[in-house]
Amino acid sequence: MTEPRWLDEREERAWRSLMVMQSGLFQYFERQLRAHSGLSAADYEVLAHLSEAPEGRMRSFALARVLRWEKGRLSQHLTRMQKRGLIRREPCPTDQRGAVVVITEPGRALIEKAAPLHVADIRKVLFDDATPAQLDLLTELGDQVKTRLAEIDQRTK
Amino acid sequence: MTEPRWLDEREERAWRSLMVMQSGLFQYFERQLRAHSGLSAADYEVLAHLSEAPEGRMRSFALARVLRWEKGRLSQHLTRMQKRGLIRREPCPTDQRGAVVVITEPGRALIEKAAPLHVADIRKVLFDDATPAQLDLLTELGDQVKTRLAEIDQRTK
Repeated sequence: MTEPRWLDEREERAWRSLMVMQSGLFQYFERQLRAHSGLSAADYEVLAHLSEAPEGRMRSFALARVLRWEKGRLSQHLTRMQKRGLIRREPCPTDQRGAVVVITEPGRALIEKAAPLHVADIRKVLFDDATPAQLDLLTELGDQVKTRLAEIDQRTK
Repeated sequence: MTEPRWLDEREERAWRSLMVMQSGLFQYFERQLRAHSGLSAADYEVLAHLSEAPEGRMRSFALARVLRWEKGRLSQHLTRMQKRGLIRREPCPTDQRGAVVVITEPGRALIEKAAPLHVADIRKVLFDDATPAQLDLLTELGDQVKTRLAEIDQRTK
């Protein structure tokens, strides 16, 4: 086996930064969401996608895809959110095995209250200091990563 | 209350990219680590920090700080890693309440086997396509976020 290509100094710094964002930033959002709205970041993501969908409804497989969650994880999470009255599940009229996930009125009220506070948090920690050039680079990086992950998904299918 | 400043299009794209990295990228690393080394990403982080520390030893509070984990989370995680023989805990000679966390020989063997594979995964999905400008951007962004989070921590103390 050849000697692995370890990260050089520049890559190492970039990697550490990504870890800070991964842990520090998202833990901060999680704490803030819980404190001001009683939602986890996962709850927030589910409600945000549903609230933007036509009539607040999405097929569960489509929801799993946009969230990039596995089916089992989504199903467990939806059960908990259903118990709290934030969403409900209905059978899909065109597919016996598929469910439709629907945001409830309390779910919609909660995300509408939480969203402005969440956006203010994102601005404060991330975007207030970011330049347009930084934002565009972040978008490029995300696109590159998405492309690579899609290629890998494809090859393992 | 004034109308919230929602994210504009450029910010929205950058935010979605960060979410892709947060979910897609780190889930990919998690799956790969489990497949090739039987480690979770959290196990890997703990072992990586310990293996780089002098004599493979760190005070548990120092480990919690570099990992940015809460004490309770670290303690639970270390208990599981100890049962698997990857680390051991020793009382701290200078502080009755503090513990010293030590990497075991099997723990070290495992991280040494996992590290080249993990780095190859990081290269493949992230760094092989990244330009130096993108790497520097990540570092800058991470530094900005770290500064903001530190300020917030300070204010809430």
